[in-house]
This record gives sequence, C-alpha cells and structure tokens, in this order.
Amino acid sequence: MPNNDSSKPALLGVDYALAKIIAMLSHTGTTVLPLVEALGYTLGKDLVAGLTLPPQAVSAMDGYAVRGKDVSILPCQLTRIAESAAGHPWAGKITAGEAVRVFTGAAMPDGADTIVVQEDVDPVAEQDNVEITVRSAEPAGRYIRPAGLDVTKGQVILSAGTLLSARAIGLACAAGLTEAEVSTRPKIGILSTGDELVHPGNILLPGQIISSNASFLKSFVTACQAEAVDLGIARDVPGAMISAIQNAKNLDLVVTTGGASVGVHDHVVSDLDNGADSGLSFWKIAMRPGKPLICGSVDGIPLIGLPGNPVSTAVCALVFLRPAIAHMARGTQTTPTFMVPLGVDLGTNDHRQDYIRSNLQDSSNGQTILPASRQDSSMMSVLAGANALIVRPPYDPAKRAGDLVKVLHIPILL
Amino acid sequence: MPNNDSSKPALLGVDYALAKIIAMLSHTGTTVLPLVEALGYTLGKDLVAGLTLPPQAVSAMDGYAVRGKDVSILPCQLTRIAESAAGHPWAGKITAGEAVRVFTGAAMPDGADTIVVQEDVDPVAEQDNVEITVRSAEPAGRYIRPAGLDVTKGQVILSAGTLLSARAIGLACAAGLTEAEVSTRPKIGILSTGDELVHPGNILLPGQIISSNASFLKSFVTACQAEAVDLGIARDVPGAMISAIQNAKNLDLVVTTGGASVGVHDHVVSDLDNGADSGLSFWKIAMRPGKPLICGSVDGIPLIGLPGNPVSTAVCALVFLRPAIAHMARGTQTTPTFMVPLGVDLGTNDHRQDYIRSNLQDSSNGQTILPASRQDSSMMSVLAGANALIVRPPYDPAKRAGDLVKVLHIPILL
Repeated sequence: MPNNDSSKPALLGVDYALAKIIAMLSHTGTTVLPLVEALGYTLGKDLVAGLTLPPQAVSAMDGYAVRGKDVSILPCQLTRIAESAAGHPWAGKITAGEAVRVFTGAAMPDGADTIVVQEDVDPVAEQDNVEITVRSAEPAGRYIRPAGLDVTKGQVILSAGTLLSARAIGLACAAGLTEAEVSTRPKIGILSTGDELVHPGNILLPGQIISSNASFLKSFVTACQAEAVDLGIARDVPGAMISAIQNAKNLDLVVTTGGASVGVHDHVVSDLDNGADSGLSFWKIAMRPGKPLICGSVDGIPLIGLPGNPVSTAVCALVFLRPAIAHMARGTQTTPTFMVPLGVDLGTNDHRQDYIRSNLQDSSNGQTILPASRQDSSMMSVLAGANALIVRPPYDPAKRAGDLVKVLHIPILL
Repeated sequence: MPNNDSSKPALLGVDYALAKIIAMLSHTGTTVLPLVEALGYTLGKDLVAGLTLPPQAVSAMDGYAVRGKDVSILPCQLTRIAESAAGHPWAGKITAGEAVRVFTGAAMPDGADTIVVQEDVDPVAEQDNVEITVRSAEPAGRYIRPAGLDVTKGQVILSAGTLLSARAIGLACAAGLTEAEVSTRPKIGILSTGDELVHPGNILLPGQIISSNASFLKSFVTACQAEAVDLGIARDVPGAMISAIQNAKNLDLVVTTGGASVGVHDHVVSDLDNGADSGLSFWKIAMRPGKPLICGSVDGIPLIGLPGNPVSTAVCALVFLRPAIAHMARGTQTTPTFMVPLGVDLGTNDHRQDYIRSNLQDSSNGQTILPASRQDSSMMSVLAGANALIVRPPYDPAKRAGDLVKVLHIPILL
C-alpha cells in the first residue's frame, strides 16, 4: 500500500527510503566454494581457523636464538650449535652458552627466549660448532612472534557478512582452510521501459534511443557480485511491466528503469498500484538526480523502479541498488564518504539531497573536489568522466572554495 | 645491473621505485570485445561516438512545447494540436497560438522554443484540439536539451587508458557502440619461494606453513583484471626461481614472494644478480612493511620480488603491483588518497614510508582513521580486518588525535 496519496506524494528522505528498501529484501541461500574461486563473494557463515598462526614461536629476524641470561654481560662468546631455518626447524634444546642460527620465519628452538640480530654478531664462520661474539642483544621476546600471534585454531577469523577480498582469502588459506560457505549471488532482473528504446546494435528511427540503461545495469550488477537477468524492454502500455516480470523465474529482485514520472505514458507506478499481485510501497525521493524512485513488489518479488534518465539511474543504483545487493548477500560493507575541500564556491542547496558529479583532483595536501560544470541528468559523458559525487544534504548552506564537503568516491568498476 | 652495491644497498624511495618498475613494463596487445563483456577492461584505443546524444532537441519535463512569443503575456490561451512522447515524435511544425503536449525525453516540435511545465497549465482535457490556459512559462530554452548536449557523433567519448566501468559502458552503448578495442589482460606469473611452504589442503609438518601468499596474489591479480599464472613453489636452493620462470610461457610479468631478505637461504637477489639471462635492477625500499622489495628481470621478463611476510606482500602489491598491472593495460587510473582526522596520537616516523593498517570509522563529520593496535607484518588477521592504510612519509613528525593524515582506502576486492 502507498504511504502517501500517490497523486501528490511527499518526498521521502534518502536514508528513510534506503531503510525501507533494505527491509523488504531477503538473504539469498548459501553454497560452499573453493576459496580460490570465492573472490568477491560474501561469507554466509563465520570462517573458523583450522590452524594456529604461527603454529609455534618464530623468529622475525635473521640472527641467533639465545638464552637471555647468557647475554646479560656483553660482549660475550657463545657456541653456535645448530641452525633453524623456515621449513627446517631444529628439534633440540638450547643450554648454557649455546646459540642457534635462525632466519626469518624459523621456529624458535626450545630454551631460547632472546634474539641477537645478525648485525650484532661476529661469527668465526657461517657454520655450526664455531664461536660467535655477541656485541648486543635484544630484550627477551623482541623479534619473536609467539605461537598464535596472528590466529588461534578454532577462532572466528572472518565473520558472516564479510566480503571475501584477496587479503581475506590469503588469511583463510593461511589458517588452513580451502573453502568457504558463501551467499549465492542474488539474481537481479533488469527491465527497461519505454517506447523510445531500441536494443544496442540497431539503427535508430526518429525519436528512438539506445536502451543503454540496461547495459549499464547489467555491468553494474555484475560488478556488485550479483547475477543480471535481462528482462528486455517493456513498452509504454499498462500492464507490460507486470507481464515481463511474471514471465521471469527465480528472481530475488527486479530493477526497472524509466516510466517512473507522472506523464500519462509512465505506467510503473500505476501498474504496481493497480495490479492484483503487486504493490507500491513508496515513490518520490528528496534527491537530485533521482526524484522519481519507486519501491514496490510484483508477485512477491521486490522491485526498485529507477528513473529513466541515465545519470539518475546510475546515481540511484549507487545509493540504493548497491547496498540492496550487498544486503541480500548478507554484506555489511559500506561505501565510506570523505570530507574533502571544495575547489569552487557552491550556492545554497534546496530541499533535495544533491549528488553532484565531480572529480577528485590531486593537490598538495591530499585532494580537492571539483564539480563538473554541467549537471543535467541526461549527460552520461559527465558521469562517465566523474570519479566522485559530492553529497549535499537538504538545505545545505552555501559553501566557499576550501570548505569541506562530503564526498563519495565512486568504486572503479561502477 | 644493480644501481647500488648489492651487499649494502641504500634504501630507495617509494615513488622512485614505482617509477623504475613502471619504466620496465610494456603495454599488452589489444583485442576487440563486445561492450557487455568488457567490464573492467582498459581501452586500448579511443572510443568514438557513433551517434549524437540526444539526436534532436528533447524536452526535459512533462508539459507543453510552445513558441516563446505566444506566452509573453500571461495568462494566455493556446490550442493543443498534437502530442510528442518519447519514441513517438510529432513531425509537424508549431505556428502561432499552438501548443504541443510533450513528455520527458520527447522530441521538441519544430518551431517551439519554450517549455510550459504541466503544473502551470489548466487544460480543458488531456487530448488534442482543446484549449489550454497557460499561467506561467519557462524562459526560452529552459528544460530543453539541445541536440548533442551530451555527445556529438565522431567525438572521442572515452580515451585510451580509461577503465571500462559500468557507467562508461552505459555511455558507449548510448552513443551507438556495441564493442570496444581493449588491452588484453596482462599474464602475471606467481611464484612462491621457501622450503617452509606447503600447498593449501595439505597436512603441515613441524616448521611448515601454508603457501597463502600465492592464494592472496592469485585473487589480487584477478581483482586487478589481470590473468594469474601459478608457477608453484621454488625451494630455497640457488637457481630454483630462475628455472621455474624459464619453464613458464608468455608471461608479461613475474611476481615472486619470499626469499628477499639477506639470509643465506634467500636466493632471489643472488639468483637475479648471478644469472646469465637475468638482472637485478634494485632492491630494498624505504618503506614499512616491505623493505626487501626486489625489481629485476629473467630472460627479458620483468620481475617484482615481494617480501614473504604476508602483510608486506599485500602492502607492496597495493603500492607497486596494482599500478604495474594498470600500466601494462594502458591504464591511467590512480588510487586516490584522502586527508582524514586521526583518532589517536602517533609518534614521530623514521626514515621509512609507513603504511599503517587502519580502519575508517564513521564519525559525525565524515570519517576518523584508527590504526590497528598491532602492526606486525606477519599478522594477516589485522590486514584482513583493515579497510585503509595511513601513509606516513619518512620523518613525518608526531601527530595528535584530530590531525589530518593521508589515507589510502583499500579497494573492496583487494
């Protein structure tokens, strides 16, 4: 049911609308994948370490393992009795007057509690059973990594909802794991609407344009680690959108573009409101671009209706679709914003949250943010050339060059 | 040839080392891909628009297209003679006293230069051949998108070196393109070194550890849009590394991990320096973690030798390998840094550029950056839990909580 009289709805805040969208979405199922194929998937379950890291105390330096009590008066002489290298531990135990040659990552010998770095030693030779002269020693424990410094067997190393980055996969492999239970990729139906749209590769008749939003959304959804399902183009007749969705199978979410305004040829809102098995949750958000955003459902499948202007589509995809996909996969990651000095003055903002296409420019102390000179919501060239959005809250007062503004850095693939 | 006496080399600056690495790399070839499969690839050649966007002037609002001279005195009455909708242009020409109903994205009729938005009109009915009363009109040209506002046919819309993001693909499709000439993915050989290493899935004997850096690097290289080639594990014997590389085919770059220190079991530097067909360009960088970074070549294949500590491997991969891969694919993108207020005090930095594992935390005005409490370069759990690095230049003076520091936000997949 609409929250508002849909003939003249109030504009909803961005945060409120996002929370409503998230609330209507379910988590996908889970599946077990080899870690080496799991890049970008989100953990469906906590990952528990199978090993302790390091498995035993190891040296963090090239040098000699000794007993601290043997090097309390310096310089002193010790006998090198053995060597412990990474992969070649020495199984004995150090006793008084003895030293074991150690290398980075090598197991610390039993009985040794102190490292002498090799720069502080004059060995007679690089071999066992020779005298070494120790000129300086580290405090006990320094440059020794105790067993379990990094990870303890049985510990949760990565919790459900974590996106598997390269470094997370490295950690999981090091902890003895080879696979992970991950959320399956949400299946996102993409449906363009509009009589003016023609599939890429076709010749245009007067008044026609290429259905580029569908290509954008397919790539966007793929970059967000979800599966895009092409539902084609629904023409501007009542019910066409509903039919296209009802013909699709097993979708977790439908995203439409276009048909979201108040014109008599825009049917998305009325279709949702009038359909027997569909519903309109809300539409019209206090944002620019992207005011005519729609939220609803068809046959129980949640639906986000994006505006048809390409820049509105893209900004709404960043602000709503990306977190929606992350949530369906149990993701907890957010897109951080940064406070960055403005390169120019900006006037007062109105009642809509503004997402200004901009570029981060290197400056002597970090970055400056420069809005693009044209902000028309049809200009894809401006968006494609931008690497950031200035996010201005409603009624933000005028800003001067040098003032800090909130900046969302657009992820490189989106 | 080494730039320095390799028995006691000076430490090189990070920027100098990166420039040297970039200088030894070649561009890959190019191939033509359908745009819908080109996400993440880098353009090998400029993309030129096949269409003008919009192809003709269009209305940016729902309303009426009129002649400005007919609405100079308001209110006034006009006759609605036709309709122009997106995909359904009207081919006639407006004359005195006439109005054409228009919807967002519709072609502007010939003769019309002014938009009246629908909220400012009282129509007798929503049909042609009725009188409409115009209460207010926009200035001529307002809410009209002229032909070519976004793109002109023949114009370069995306230049060689641009990474194909979702929004770039949307632009290219809209401009009538279906494919693009992109750089082929660089083939990156990944070679671990060390007697202590065991492939994932095996039981560990005393002193052994899992070869997790290889899993990390495979995922990292994949996330950087390059192709990872597994060269296995080279054991700690002279020449093993060279042999493993010489057995591989068609590599654009080799990345090794481990064996980069000064220990007698570390052979990467001496192998490069001593091999008949290999060379050592430099090693040892003034950075922490990552000091023992190596740059060289084997049989003409450029080689980056990363340190073996997992955190050093990962930080060097971010700082050197990611830009190296981008450069091979002609990429011009950079990872921006931001100035972010510190959440804690930091002491003076020494002579090495420091990359401190940290977390961006939401605060009332943007973000605060908090260093992880442990910074040991073996602690993968700390790195996997971090989402940013504080970058501290050599000899950076002490900082207080609230001071701004340079922050590199780690891309979500890396």
